[in-house]
Order: sequence, then structure tokens, then C-alpha cells
Amino acid sequence: MRMLVRFHRLACLAASTAALSLPAWGQGAAPVPPNAQQSDPARLGWMVGSPPPPDKIVRFADGSAYRFPQLRWSFSNFRQMVPTTNVSRRLTPPAPLPQALRDDLDAVVFTPLGKSEPMTWRQAYDANYTDGVLVLHRGRVVYERYSGVLGPYGQHIAMSVTKSFFGTLGQMLVAEGKLDDNAPVGQYVPELKATAFGDATVRQLLDMRTGLKYSENYADPMAEIWAHARSGGVLPRPPGYQGPQTFYEFLQTVQKEGSHGGVFAYKTVNTDALGWVIRRVTGQSIGDALSERIWSRLGMEQDAYFTVDAVGNEFAGGGLNAGLRDLARFGEMMRNDGMAGGQQIVPKAVVDDIRKGGDRDAFKAAGYATLPGWSYRGMWWVSHNEHGAFMARGIHGQAIYIDPKAEMVIARFGSHPAAANGFNDPTSLPAYHALAQRLMADPR
Amino acid sequence: MRMLVRFHRLACLAASTAALSLPAWGQGAAPVPPNAQQSDPARLGWMVGSPPPPDKIVRFADGSAYRFPQLRWSFSNFRQMVPTTNVSRRLTPPAPLPQALRDDLDAVVFTPLGKSEPMTWRQAYDANYTDGVLVLHRGRVVYERYSGVLGPYGQHIAMSVTKSFFGTLGQMLVAEGKLDDNAPVGQYVPELKATAFGDATVRQLLDMRTGLKYSENYADPMAEIWAHARSGGVLPRPPGYQGPQTFYEFLQTVQKEGSHGGVFAYKTVNTDALGWVIRRVTGQSIGDALSERIWSRLGMEQDAYFTVDAVGNEFAGGGLNAGLRDLARFGEMMRNDGMAGGQQIVPKAVVDDIRKGGDRDAFKAAGYATLPGWSYRGMWWVSHNEHGAFMARGIHGQAIYIDPKAEMVIARFGSHPAAANGFNDPTSLPAYHALAQRLMADPR
Repeated sequence: MRMLVRFHRLACLAASTAALSLPAWGQGAAPVPPNAQQSDPARLGWMVGSPPPPDKIVRFADGSAYRFPQLRWSFSNFRQMVPTTNVSRRLTPPAPLPQALRDDLDAVVFTPLGKSEPMTWRQAYDANYTDGVLVLHRGRVVYERYSGVLGPYGQHIAMSVTKSFFGTLGQMLVAEGKLDDNAPVGQYVPELKATAFGDATVRQLLDMRTGLKYSENYADPMAEIWAHARSGGVLPRPPGYQGPQTFYEFLQTVQKEGSHGGVFAYKTVNTDALGWVIRRVTGQSIGDALSERIWSRLGMEQDAYFTVDAVGNEFAGGGLNAGLRDLARFGEMMRNDGMAGGQQIVPKAVVDDIRKGGDRDAFKAAGYATLPGWSYRGMWWVSHNEHGAFMARGIHGQAIYIDPKAEMVIARFGSHPAAANGFNDPTSLPAYHALAQRLMADPR
Repeated sequence: MRMLVRFHRLACLAASTAALSLPAWGQGAAPVPPNAQQSDPARLGWMVGSPPPPDKIVRFADGSAYRFPQLRWSFSNFRQMVPTTNVSRRLTPPAPLPQALRDDLDAVVFTPLGKSEPMTWRQAYDANYTDGVLVLHRGRVVYERYSGVLGPYGQHIAMSVTKSFFGTLGQMLVAEGKLDDNAPVGQYVPELKATAFGDATVRQLLDMRTGLKYSENYADPMAEIWAHARSGGVLPRPPGYQGPQTFYEFLQTVQKEGSHGGVFAYKTVNTDALGWVIRRVTGQSIGDALSERIWSRLGMEQDAYFTVDAVGNEFAGGGLNAGLRDLARFGEMMRNDGMAGGQQIVPKAVVDDIRKGGDRDAFKAAGYATLPGWSYRGMWWVSHNEHGAFMARGIHGQAIYIDPKAEMVIARFGSHPAAANGFNDPTSLPAYHALAQRLMADPR
């Protein structure tokens, strides 16, 4: 189990690790994790009973919330683990999400990356340990399925899909002239002046092109990501823990390595630094800013929530938990150039800028095997494929996939045993594209 | 401050202490707490800033969440303190709460209990450290006001108002024949057979007429209520804590004292035992049972949530947090004989049984100075006044006050410096009654 454990030891932060190598599950001595049915959290009965049997208890302090297959339960129940804050939808009636379900999509066939054998959409659903997926075509729900302990009115951790919400907020503030993306971060947050962030620009944060001594390599127990997560109470702390007590304290320890403005380097800490900037610019918590500018304006059906650190500071890098249908509403607004319910929620220029993407050469250097030709802009992943698809991505398979040409939005929650999305990309990215092609060829 | 501290040291459990004596604030050496304006949590800026200044941080572990005036912030932000579970409203549109606001109610005059000087409704609002109050007359909102950090889309801890939800659920199960209120608790929860609850009937739980070695005297540091609260993680635990780890573990330690079926003795632990019974009978968590049977059926505007212990067990005795408007919706359904939106949510026979009240002699023995002639039935407080008013009550001033004759429902959240409702009853109970009389005399 050692190799497997390494991959899902942390289940809360980044979207994808660079230069990944796929594990050879089922070959030789490599471990084979239980499949989707075997690991179904409802079937396994986590936390069921009064009280649950001792071997069915999932808790934060003992680390079981991050273990597979327990994480298949905890990802839909994060608020039972740690303190949280609410992101209010306020009291307006939910916006309708018209249904036009199709029964032909399960049979859509695609060929996984690096394979020759085809696979169906329905097979991919299981292969990727999907907890829920919803597909909008021209704003109507054409596919919606849930598994395990997630349902339409549940809330699932979005992991680094969170980042795209804050990238969008950041770009909105830039568009409004409230935030100068050419200004150094230290100008907005003086506490960061003496750190690596001090002379990085807001734009470099937004595009993750900072030079930071910060590793997000989950296989390395000394990687800074662990200290980052522990500072915010996102991971349990060892007895006698003396490290940073809050995200803010950790951010002030980050040192420079290399130079800013160079290659793309995916580091969650950039988003938490951006969160600090957004708080200073808006004078709000980032949860309140998200509620005011986005969550209360899209006719969301449910409140969302954030995991928070010891001073109530939301985890901007990966702490958002939300309903799948609300995630889809956000994607649909982005597909519609920032419009929803007849109102301009996000300036069109912001959406255009994100869709245009970032520097593809800078991205290429990061070596993502499953994302050839992609780029990163404003905390979104941009495919530059012939449909102009762009994505929000979070580890273990969280995703918002927006295909403007196909007029399609896919929202997906998952609990794949491996954290890095490189493990589910081969059976998800081509599936998304095949679905887009079907919807374009046979709109109903 | 010593005396004052004693009263608000615990801020989460019971509704009222017996044989209370009002503190002589402002007289001699007795302390005077800051008034409503001085202690306004928005004005004091708790948890504002990125990060908040050290002296503005409210946390669970250091006990500050239960200190006055910090509790004026934490009562509206309990989820930032501890793990919680959701009580879903599901995805149905909220039921409208028609507005017919009146500007004459602030000036309604009444005479506080034990006083001769009159006071206005508006003065009482401040005197009672009200966080929010909403008055329905014939189903329309005639008064709605919020203070501090609570607003219409916030959620506030309901304290022991929670109990009335579970009393209602318990009585519903009895009415449906799923629960025998004459059966011993040990029949439903074998783990409780060897405890005080083993030979208590479900009815004795519902009416709090059990003989338990369990003190809810907040002034006594050895009172069992402290161990109860610590077991569920509702209060911080001292270093090296070796006591019960969950509510279930604590419940199994409760020993008998006296006999069951005697006098009324308000002990929160009865409701947690009832919660265990409800779980066993329904096969659901009590949060899910509440969602399915009540929260999703009243057109609530917001989800509610529960504080939970280490195995995800909700605090039935006082852990519900909800929006004020939703609390009012529940009260309005009870006023309407269990009907809401044209549907019978709670059987009329259940509401009738609660309204009829319990044994007044058994209640009298408990010595509540501010509740003469009252009784307790199905975890509701019944006034037996000429309007047939009945109440859900939680410490620090949480209340649902239902006046059938005046066709009035009052929902109220508060953060009074003193826990026991005996401290706010003198300026709230006669105010409620005066408002009822005004609405009857001058309906609009």
C-alpha cells in the first residue's frame, strides 16, 4: 500500500502535480486500490449507526479523513471534520436549472489518453471514482448522476476548483480598477514585503508565475505544502506542534527561489496570498466577497462553505465546499461571457482574458503530460483546443469543464484514490471532449 | 466580574435554572455588564481584519467563545468554532413570508415582572441583548429587527430551542406508532439499560420527569452538565482530558437519583437520550430526521446546522443553529395545528397534546420564579395563560413564543450576558403578552 498511500496522503490542495508518472496498478507488485463499487462510501457504511462501529468512524485528528477509501465519505462531509464559515446564497429564490436529460450519453465512446481500447462515458464515471457529474448543454441539464454519499443537495469539497473562484474575483477587482495587477503584492499586504511575495506582482500570483521556495510534491514529506496545510488546520498537527498557527503566519515564511515572471509553477500558496490581497482590497473576508459578488447573484440553490484556520481565515487555495448544481451554475455563467439571469455578474473582459489563456511556453516547462499545449490564466486552466475549452481543476477529480464551442459545461466531483489529476485526466479529458462532440453533432 | 462570569461561563445548554435569584446589577459592589450598545459585536469588531488584531480574536479552545461580550459574536458564528453537520432545506423554493411591517410596535408598553416602571418593546429589545426578533401576526411579518452581526440570512445558535424540535419529532414518532412513549428507554437503546435511563419511559424523557444524578447548576463546577458538554466537544477539554469522548459515552455514565415520574427537573441530558432513541427508531441521524420531517417541508430559506461530537452525533440538547425567519416558520406551523403550505407537517394531535401542557404541580416543584403556573410537555414550555401561549426556550434568550389566541408567533435570538432565561424573562414575557394584546386590539 505504500505507494498508494503516498499519493492520497494529502487530499486537499493542488490540482495536479508536474511531471507525473502514472502508477502501474494491477501490474507486478504494484497495489490495486478497491474499485468504485468496492469503495462506495454508502456501501461501506462510514459513520452510519448510533454510534457508528469503531472501524467505521472517519475523523480528522487521526488522519482517516484523508485516507482512501474513507475520503470517499469525508469529501462530502468536510464540515464534520473542521470549523467552517458560510458562503451565503442569501434569500433570493434559486434560479431554475432546466432539465432535458438524455439517455444516449452513457454510451458515448472515447479512447483514453495513451490507450488504444475505447471506453464509454459510463465506464469512465466509475473508473474516475466519480461522486457526481452534471452536464449542461445550452443551459439545460442533459446529464446528472450521483454516487455514494453525495446527492443533489449535498455539498462536496471542491479542492483547487476553489482557486478559479478567487482568480475570477481577483480579475474582477483588476477590471474594476480596485486592484493593479502590475503592482507588487507587498503594496497591498505590507506583512508580505519581506517574503518571496513582496516583489511579485498580483498578475504573477494570478498566473502562478512566481519564484517560490515551496514544493507541492506530495511524495516528499519535507515539501512546504505540508507546513502550509498544517498552518491552516487543514491537516492534523503532530503533538507538540510549534509551527505557524494560521495561513497568514505561514505565508510570511515563504522565501524566494528563482525569479518571478518565469515558468508556470503550480503552488497553492499563491492563491492564499491572493486571498490576503483580496481581503485587503475589499475589506471583506473572502467568503463574504464571494457571497456578495458571485454566490448570491447566480440563483444558487445552496449555501457553500469554507474550511477556516484558527483566526477564521478561509482556505482560498482549496477550502470551498459546494453543491454540484451550483458549481455548474458558476460554469454556465462563465460560458455565457459572465452573464446570468440577464445580469452581468463577471465583466465580459474578465472572461475573455481568462479564455484567451496564459503563456503556453511558460506552461509547457512545467511538464504536465496530460495537458499538452495548455496554459494557465487567472487561476484557470486553458486547453487551447479547437473548442476553446477551459477548466477549474482540483485534486482527486474535482472539475468545471467549459466548452464554449459545444455550449457545454461539465461540473464534476470525485474521490479518486490518487490526488493528482494526471491520474484521472486520461479517462476524463477525452470523455469531456467526446461528449462535446456528441452534443454538437446531435443537439436535442 | 466573578459573579457575572459564573452566569455566562457555559452558554449552550439549558433553558432556565430553577430557583433563580436575579443579580443586583448596578447596586453596591455587584458588577454591571456592558449594555447592548456597548457590547454590540459589530461595533467591537470581533474577528474583523486580515488577520483580526489579537485582542479581537474569538476562539473555541481558549473559552473566549463563551465569554461575554465575545459570545455576542460567537452565537452567530458557531460553525467557525467546532465541526458541524448540515440540516438541509433541500432544493425546493422557499415559502414566502409575507411582509406587513408595522411602525407602532416599538412603542408598545409593558411592565417588567417585579417592577412598577413601564418599558417599551424597543427598550426591551436592548435590555435583553436581542440579536434578532421577528413577529408574525396571522402569518405575516409585522416586526423584524436584527442587531450586531446577525442578519436575515445569518444563522444563530438556538440553544435549548433545539429541544422543542426533538420533542416534536419524538411526539410525531409516538403518534405514528413507531415509538411507544410508555416503553422504557432501555428497550430502544440497550446500551442505556444499566443507566438511570434504562427504566425511565420515553414519556418521562419527553416531559423531563426522570430521576437523574445530574445537576444543571451552572454555578457548580462539579455539576454533571460540564462533563456532558465536554463529552460532546461543546466545551473545550482540559489538557490530558480522560473523560467520555462522545455524548453516547457520557449518557452511559448517568446514574439514577430519586425516582422517575416525579417532579419536573430540567436536565439537558434527557434530550440527548431522546435523540439516541430517535436515531434507533428512525435509523437516521437526528439531523437527517429533522431535515426529512420538518426542515425540508416548511419552505425554509436556509439550511440549519448542528454542532456534533467526535463521532458525528448531533447535540440534540442544544446544538441547532438556524436563521431567525426559519425559526418563525416552524413556530407558525405549530400555531396552525401542524399545517404549513396546505400540508399536515406535524399531526394535529401532537400539537394539541403539547398545547394542553404537562403536569402543573410537577412543574411547580421546580420553583421557576418567572414561570408561575406553567408546565412542560414534549420538550415545550406551556404558559397556561389566557391566550394558551407556549414556548421553546434556550439560554441567553433564544425563544419561539406562540400565542394561539392572538394568532402571533415571535422568534427571537439573543446574547444576554446571563445564561438563565430567568434574567431576561422579566423584560421579555410581559413584552410578548403586551404585543399580543396590541395585535388583537388593533389588527391591520
